[in-house]
Amino acid sequence: MVNTVEATAVNTIRTLAADVVHGANSGHPGAPMGCAPMAQTLFSKFIKVNPKNPHWANRDRFVLSNGHACALQYIMLHLLGFDVTMDDLKKFRAIDSKTPGHPERGWTEGIEVTTGPLGQGVSNAVGLALAQAQLGATFNKPGFEIFNNDTYVILGDGCLQEGVAAEAVSLAGHWKLGKLIALYDDNKITIDGDTAVSFTEDVQKRFESYGWQVLVVADGDNDFEAIAKAVEQAKAETEKPTLIKIRTTIGYGSQHQGEEKVHGSPLSADDIKNVKQKFGFNPDEKYVVPQQVYDFWAKRAEENAKVEAEWNELVAKYQKEFPTEAAELKRRLAGKLPEGWEKALPRFTPSDPAVATRKLSETVLTALSDVVPELIGGSADLTGSNLTRWKKAVDFQHPSTGLGQYDGRYVRYGVREHAMFAIMNGIAAYQGLIPFGGTFLNFLTYGWGATRLSAVSHLRVIYVMTHDSIGLGEDGPTHQPIETLALVRATPNIYTMRPADGNETSGCYLVALENDHRPSVIALSRQNLPQLEGSNIEAVRKGGYVLHAEQKPDVVLAATGSEVAIAVDAAKLLEKEGLKVQTVSMPITDLFDEQSHEYKLSVFPQNTPVVSVEALTVFGWQQYSHAQVGMTTFGASGPIKDVYAKFKITPENTANVAKDLIQHFKKIGQVPELPCQRQ
Amino acid sequence: MVNTVEATAVNTIRTLAADVVHGANSGHPGAPMGCAPMAQTLFSKFIKVNPKNPHWANRDRFVLSNGHACALQYIMLHLLGFDVTMDDLKKFRAIDSKTPGHPERGWTEGIEVTTGPLGQGVSNAVGLALAQAQLGATFNKPGFEIFNNDTYVILGDGCLQEGVAAEAVSLAGHWKLGKLIALYDDNKITIDGDTAVSFTEDVQKRFESYGWQVLVVADGDNDFEAIAKAVEQAKAETEKPTLIKIRTTIGYGSQHQGEEKVHGSPLSADDIKNVKQKFGFNPDEKYVVPQQVYDFWAKRAEENAKVEAEWNELVAKYQKEFPTEAAELKRRLAGKLPEGWEKALPRFTPSDPAVATRKLSETVLTALSDVVPELIGGSADLTGSNLTRWKKAVDFQHPSTGLGQYDGRYVRYGVREHAMFAIMNGIAAYQGLIPFGGTFLNFLTYGWGATRLSAVSHLRVIYVMTHDSIGLGEDGPTHQPIETLALVRATPNIYTMRPADGNETSGCYLVALENDHRPSVIALSRQNLPQLEGSNIEAVRKGGYVLHAEQKPDVVLAATGSEVAIAVDAAKLLEKEGLKVQTVSMPITDLFDEQSHEYKLSVFPQNTPVVSVEALTVFGWQQYSHAQVGMTTFGASGPIKDVYAKFKITPENTANVAKDLIQHFKKIGQVPELPCQRQ
Ligand SMILES: [Ca+2]
Ligand SMILES: [Ca+2]
Repeated sequence: MVNTVEATAVNTIRTLAADVVHGANSGHPGAPMGCAPMAQTLFSKFIKVNPKNPHWANRDRFVLSNGHACALQYIMLHLLGFDVTMDDLKKFRAIDSKTPGHPERGWTEGIEVTTGPLGQGVSNAVGLALAQAQLGATFNKPGFEIFNNDTYVILGDGCLQEGVAAEAVSLAGHWKLGKLIALYDDNKITIDGDTAVSFTEDVQKRFESYGWQVLVVADGDNDFEAIAKAVEQAKAETEKPTLIKIRTTIGYGSQHQGEEKVHGSPLSADDIKNVKQKFGFNPDEKYVVPQQVYDFWAKRAEENAKVEAEWNELVAKYQKEFPTEAAELKRRLAGKLPEGWEKALPRFTPSDPAVATRKLSETVLTALSDVVPELIGGSADLTGSNLTRWKKAVDFQHPSTGLGQYDGRYVRYGVREHAMFAIMNGIAAYQGLIPFGGTFLNFLTYGWGATRLSAVSHLRVIYVMTHDSIGLGEDGPTHQPIETLALVRATPNIYTMRPADGNETSGCYLVALENDHRPSVIALSRQNLPQLEGSNIEAVRKGGYVLHAEQKPDVVLAATGSEVAIAVDAAKLLEKEGLKVQTVSMPITDLFDEQSHEYKLSVFPQNTPVVSVEALTVFGWQQYSHAQVGMTTFGASGPIKDVYAKFKITPENTANVAKDLIQHFKKIGQVPELPCQRQ
Repeated sequence: MVNTVEATAVNTIRTLAADVVHGANSGHPGAPMGCAPMAQTLFSKFIKVNPKNPHWANRDRFVLSNGHACALQYIMLHLLGFDVTMDDLKKFRAIDSKTPGHPERGWTEGIEVTTGPLGQGVSNAVGLALAQAQLGATFNKPGFEIFNNDTYVILGDGCLQEGVAAEAVSLAGHWKLGKLIALYDDNKITIDGDTAVSFTEDVQKRFESYGWQVLVVADGDNDFEAIAKAVEQAKAETEKPTLIKIRTTIGYGSQHQGEEKVHGSPLSADDIKNVKQKFGFNPDEKYVVPQQVYDFWAKRAEENAKVEAEWNELVAKYQKEFPTEAAELKRRLAGKLPEGWEKALPRFTPSDPAVATRKLSETVLTALSDVVPELIGGSADLTGSNLTRWKKAVDFQHPSTGLGQYDGRYVRYGVREHAMFAIMNGIAAYQGLIPFGGTFLNFLTYGWGATRLSAVSHLRVIYVMTHDSIGLGEDGPTHQPIETLALVRATPNIYTMRPADGNETSGCYLVALENDHRPSVIALSRQNLPQLEGSNIEAVRKGGYVLHAEQKPDVVLAATGSEVAIAVDAAKLLEKEGLKVQTVSMPITDLFDEQSHEYKLSVFPQNTPVVSVEALTVFGWQQYSHAQVGMTTFGASGPIKDVYAKFKITPENTANVAKDLIQHFKKIGQVPELPCQRQ
């Protein structure tokens, strides 16, 4: 091998990766060593990022979809000059270090999206590329390419096997996202050994079937030029995303190169010495970056800084020629919502007609569509049911289709829930757009792999989940969520919302948009619901609130969404029997948990029996209530009234449960302290 | 159109579908009307089933993957002579009827698998075909084709867009499942309108890339012969699954045929009249099956009965020639476990070394591999981590690969969790095999769409979920489950298992295998755990039990899995301070819920503070404990000890929480009744 700087730089990555993983005594050396040439090529010749300003808006995006190879990414960030020191590399996988076991957005500078769960990164990248296309179409003007960055992905066999990726890359082909370039680390190895055991499809043909350009690099270990040429070719193709299939050797340089062994465990100390010797490094030195390599990257950093400086000049000129657009651009990039946007939220009074909350959600989205232009929404092929599309919406489609435009803000995801969620994560991560997406609540768990990452990585993604209970009726148990809200509530850093009427629907959107650091799941009814006495938008900010107050009530009835009206009717029944009933609506339980002890006791007074009503699992309600009206089995197919009657989610049964509870506590001589009442 | 019986039969399906959906005032007429010719062709010419014995072992399997078209399936069952009467058809989508909104296995005779959630059915079908191949290779002898049935699927655009299906069909191609035949209802319509809006990939090319044969029928509305010919050709290809792409018109016959309108709502009364007129039916009559059509199907039923009779004769001969195999066959088909199998479960004493429960699971699986030969397991490319493979296992692979055999019992699923779960559902539904499959617990939610259907449809599927908490350490929050067990516990009809040591691991498998009508999720540790004093296999049958009993304890410490040892150590700390501590292990909380009130109070005595310890979300534990040691945030990357310390899941913190709790209840003058203590 010619000892050019480039070769030395590649071998620096390889030896450093071996050291970093060995230092942690845990991790994945094989992929970083195999992918070193493609990473070197991408970051030295193509990817424009500025380590001094990691959030520069038009930077190229890089996603390591095989996130377990993150030693590679940390090393590249270090070399590029991001805030990842050699010391940080030495703390790889140590607690609270900047270099955790998988890349975490928001934790380590320069990480665009959190990866590791396979298939997510490449799907996020589709969202990043969509966001570039959408913002480019929205803001660019002739001579002013404000948004024209590329999105690069490295991915492995694992990502290609995951269904979420299959869904997302099919959409990328449909959308003709020409600025999306994926480098496939084709090393013929997975954890179970040779890919021959389970992955024998023709990947090239498959990607061509999706409308991708596919290029092949035969020797990704040594032929750096071929890699660069392929990337050039990918950039030249502007109407198709490109997959570059690069044949590599996992753990290249190790005595066990090409074997599964080097995938998920450190190389032995001896093997590392061998690697270093092979690549002309001192076998007795660790964590070495030759000065010429540092110099090489310092030069690249200068070039990069210049590129951003030029872009800043361009934006300055843009500001003069297009002051309105420039002001909007500035606002978007600052992540600020338009002044007074919340005034557009519709308000209701009890005399307004009964409407399904999914329909009320449509009203909110319609009202916000002009006021909050960064909203970009869609549905997984349930537009007419989720009611996610405002009337004037333009579809996000390649202009050649005649079905929409790239500056369209309505996204047709097809029947691809998991990809929709992962793409929304990518859109949110890009900055400048707020994604929302709809499906039936029951199908939230088709894509939970992505939803959990919305929460882990603090992304403002809005899940518009309609048909949110057995109230969907005839479609039956396969479509009726039972366990779903318990899942969301059990998950940190995500709001679980279930509005009861129009004001609460507005309130839920208020909270979802205000919270720019977490996702929200809004559960919405299929069936019509009355506008409630006592409901209001701002009260939703407390998560739970008193709808009808009583001094020293005999019992509290707490409910969410479509069951609040049932609780209100149950209260009437109980009042007829002389009981004082306080009714409580709990649209966002997790937000209620954040309130003061005093406030919580005002909603759930001590020594007062509480019954909750929710037409989903009762699991978890024991925090707030002593007895639960809800589901303990799967649902059933039938007209909504019959289904509610079958499972006794009715005012009559609620009233009976309340009376029994009051009696029981009289008998045992205590009203037990509720978990939510403890300080 | 020539008015042959066949044409009349097809039009009977179409008019009846329109009536059935109209009668329910809810449902999907379009697909049944468009798919009538393929259904007619399949059931009249190919599919061998016996309505008089719906569980005949070698019947052809039929899966309606687009389950929303189930009016079609119910009509076919009715015509075939299954226990679905015209009256049942009239009760389509009515509560508790035999004809719910989506087909439900175990509820309606003749339904093989529960479908509706898109992508599941075709993936189940891959499992059904795998089961046939595996049992065929196991039991067939020259001249004795005991298992040689075909598996037929009808699917639509929706199923093809779902990632789970992409994963599953890739595996079907890899496994060369030649007896799997899928008919694709290519009607160019999805709910959002023309497939052009989101589904423009080249399906034919994609399936060819997976190693499928793809055939095309240009006119699926009228060219019945072409459909039959294609199915013949599919049957002739024995080394590849076949996709037959059949161009159809959704709602064929309606005034709105070919439009999205006819997908999900009944046709108007006028339009139904028009349909009937068009097809030569009396527009004023409803629910009509011409006698000649009934006669036609009666004849088919006779032929079908003969086919089963011949098979029974074959089995009788087989019994004479191969009595051992025949006895085994009989046992398997009866769904009985081998006499005394449970004696093979390993037992441990506290002097045995500390071992990770994933490793103990491997020991159980190894011990059972010979004793329970219907166990067929695998992993989603984490074999070495999940430890799901016993040493002598043979891989399930097509013999031509040289990597295994069709009678192999270890399945290499690749990185395809969702397909693995859906395929396991298909395997379990076939009868004669018990599937288990492994991945990290965190990735259970990559495939929850299928897991929920294991529960809905009462299938004995065993989920071997390792690395079950923050205890997986360095891989960090993207891989550490937090919310996952709450999800499983909130789901009806599934057992959530988290064994603490060797005896409990054996006990969990005991319960999982004994329960033939529900799935089980076994959560297993990455880290080593001591063999506990007081643990035992049979106690697991109670779900929760006292590990160390005390008379009138000051406090109860309850825990699961890896945290039981932490609770035991916390008890020692408290005992040093003079407190009496009862320790409780809760390996299967849902099973504990089924115990008697008296038993529950023996575990959790009244008026006694309870602290629970589990290194996952505390959400839901309020049923059993007054205070919880556990997770309320996502985890962190680091060595296990550091991670547990960071989140205070330690004996010291547990002891402190217990002491604070005791103080608090003294202060408020009550120990609140726990939900699990109420009768
Ligand atoms: Ca690989
Ligand atoms: Ca269709």
